[in-house]
Amino acid sequence: MEVSDRAVRLANAFGEGVYTENCPTRVALTRVTSKWAPLLLAALSDGEPLRWNELRRRATGITEKMLAQTLRMLEEDGYVHREARPVVPPHVEYSLTPAGEELTERLLALMVFVSDRALADEPAAG
Amino acid sequence: MEVSDRAVRLANAFGEGVYTENCPTRVALTRVTSKWAPLLLAALSDGEPLRWNELRRRATGITEKMLAQTLRMLEEDGYVHREARPVVPPHVEYSLTPAGEELTERLLALMVFVSDRALADEPAAG
Repeated sequence: MEVSDRAVRLANAFGEGVYTENCPTRVALTRVTSKWAPLLLAALSDGEPLRWNELRRRATGITEKMLAQTLRMLEEDGYVHREARPVVPPHVEYSLTPAGEELTERLLALMVFVSDRALADEPAAG
Repeated sequence: MEVSDRAVRLANAFGEGVYTENCPTRVALTRVTSKWAPLLLAALSDGEPLRWNELRRRATGITEKMLAQTLRMLEEDGYVHREARPVVPPHVEYSLTPAGEELTERLLALMVFVSDRALADEPAAG
């Protein structure tokens, strides 16, 4: 398993730094799996840029504050591109960067896998 | 992107249930990305069963309590197999189940990706 070899070597290289609070990998993993990031990334994954209100509608239950915070974090990490469109009335659009697309592909593969297993454990509906 | 299509359909199907506290997908994702689970899964990913003390040594900084809790959680979710070996002295070994191997492959792909990006952002060492 090539990826696994990479990960083991990474873990060994970090040594004592692995998974301490400030370990860059731990921090980066926590950010992309935080409460709302996966849902916003999934919403943007079909390639269509989305406006603020559209993202808010897709992430049922998100507050304005958490939407702003999560989008800013994803922008800082280079996964989401924010573009102010000079139209009348002006509006802002969000889309995945190429790195965001690569990230989302991996994240969704993980989400779909755990989701299938979690749902298989649920009592059958109807 | 096939996985993405699946994820969008999943999200639509869940409707209002998506990402609420009790959403099974959210809960399952939180469990496998919790503080110590990724490191224990990575440690087991080379296929060699490991004993308690070996796992503890690999997960620098983990407490006995968190090691027990995380292993029990991974066992409950069907990702880790616990086997008491009837030898003298008796000991217990942990290994990945087939589902655990599939999970870890996906999780490591995500971890290696975010790790590479996080480390590229760090100031160069030396």
